[in-house]
Amino acid sequence: MDQPPVATENAGSEVRDKTPRTERGRRTLRKLLDAAAVEFGERGFHEASISAITRRAGTALGSFYTYFDSKDEIFQALVRYMSEQLRDHVTPVVQEAPDAIAAERLGLQSYLGFVREHKEIYRIIDEAEFVDYASYRRHYETTVERIRHRLEGAAKRGDIRPDAGEVHAWAIAGMNVFLGMRYGLWDEAADVDAVAQAANDLLANGLKRN
Amino acid sequence: MDQPPVATENAGSEVRDKTPRTERGRRTLRKLLDAAAVEFGERGFHEASISAITRRAGTALGSFYTYFDSKDEIFQALVRYMSEQLRDHVTPVVQEAPDAIAAERLGLQSYLGFVREHKEIYRIIDEAEFVDYASYRRHYETTVERIRHRLEGAAKRGDIRPDAGEVHAWAIAGMNVFLGMRYGLWDEAADVDAVAQAANDLLANGLKRN
Repeated sequence: MDQPPVATENAGSEVRDKTPRTERGRRTLRKLLDAAAVEFGERGFHEASISAITRRAGTALGSFYTYFDSKDEIFQALVRYMSEQLRDHVTPVVQEAPDAIAAERLGLQSYLGFVREHKEIYRIIDEAEFVDYASYRRHYETTVERIRHRLEGAAKRGDIRPDAGEVHAWAIAGMNVFLGMRYGLWDEAADVDAVAQAANDLLANGLKRN
Repeated sequence: MDQPPVATENAGSEVRDKTPRTERGRRTLRKLLDAAAVEFGERGFHEASISAITRRAGTALGSFYTYFDSKDEIFQALVRYMSEQLRDHVTPVVQEAPDAIAAERLGLQSYLGFVREHKEIYRIIDEAEFVDYASYRRHYETTVERIRHRLEGAAKRGDIRPDAGEVHAWAIAGMNVFLGMRYGLWDEAADVDAVAQAANDLLANGLKRN
């Protein structure tokens, strides 16, 4: 995973480097971000508080201010952290796939599993639309960029249709996000492998009769 | 379009029928909902105010309370109103389609056009996730239900693959919403017909090489 945010402006508008330099510091930072995911996920941005985050993290209030200046700042870092956690969850699975279409199936399957274990991701990413639009947009743009890159590589190798590209990547991202909401978030009982298989077969072959 | 909300509970918990009985009343109600779309779309739920809605609508404050008891109540009615406007925009276009796959292309094309003209729809529907989750969920469930109904009818007639159903409908809804965000909302210059064509070709034929 990339390091969490490196430098932000503080009140005096000079830039303060907040990247932790020790393993202990990195552990504290992760504890704060994991606690923030629970706090923002349960209470939403407006109700969430810095003191509740440090309480959940089991850290002193001072530790918070070592890494963040404000609730806005940890929220922004959290969106990036969740986006990176998701990438790190899905990418190795996709890289093991035998072919380009299986890669998208395994990617969706892995995403649905991630949603089941991190149900707060929808509320957090979606609230970013209102709290921090740039982070919201960046999350989707970087996610789609990874899909587009996979598709264009596979098209170049002749594994899939030669015109696969950006529009297809946005279509796949939208499919995945909606299937995650319906079958990962709302429906505990759904068989996520069967959902991924059905969606992948649509992606592979389209709607035409065989 | 369906009538806007018919009955809600007021403070005394008895139910008050607020359906307008005259053409003039229906016109006032629509003016309030159109003004609410602009107000909530520009300022968001928390900053929006009832007095600004009536000012934008050019109606007296009293008219508001003829139809709604609160800001929450007009927001809920607005989500439903936008959902129905979208349905009424897309449905006749889809019904004119020569076949099931063209129906999805025309549906997406018509949706992208609607987004261009009603950019506030994303902010309003998405804010419902935080302000009124039941309305948020109902919007997607009824939208997907229409797609599923189209697909299952076409499958029964033998026009498309026989297993087309719910998972495919959620996948298509997700595709459309994300393509609408990327090419309808964020990118004024995108050729929406070309986007709809590319996405529909994916939907028709999948990713496999021809």
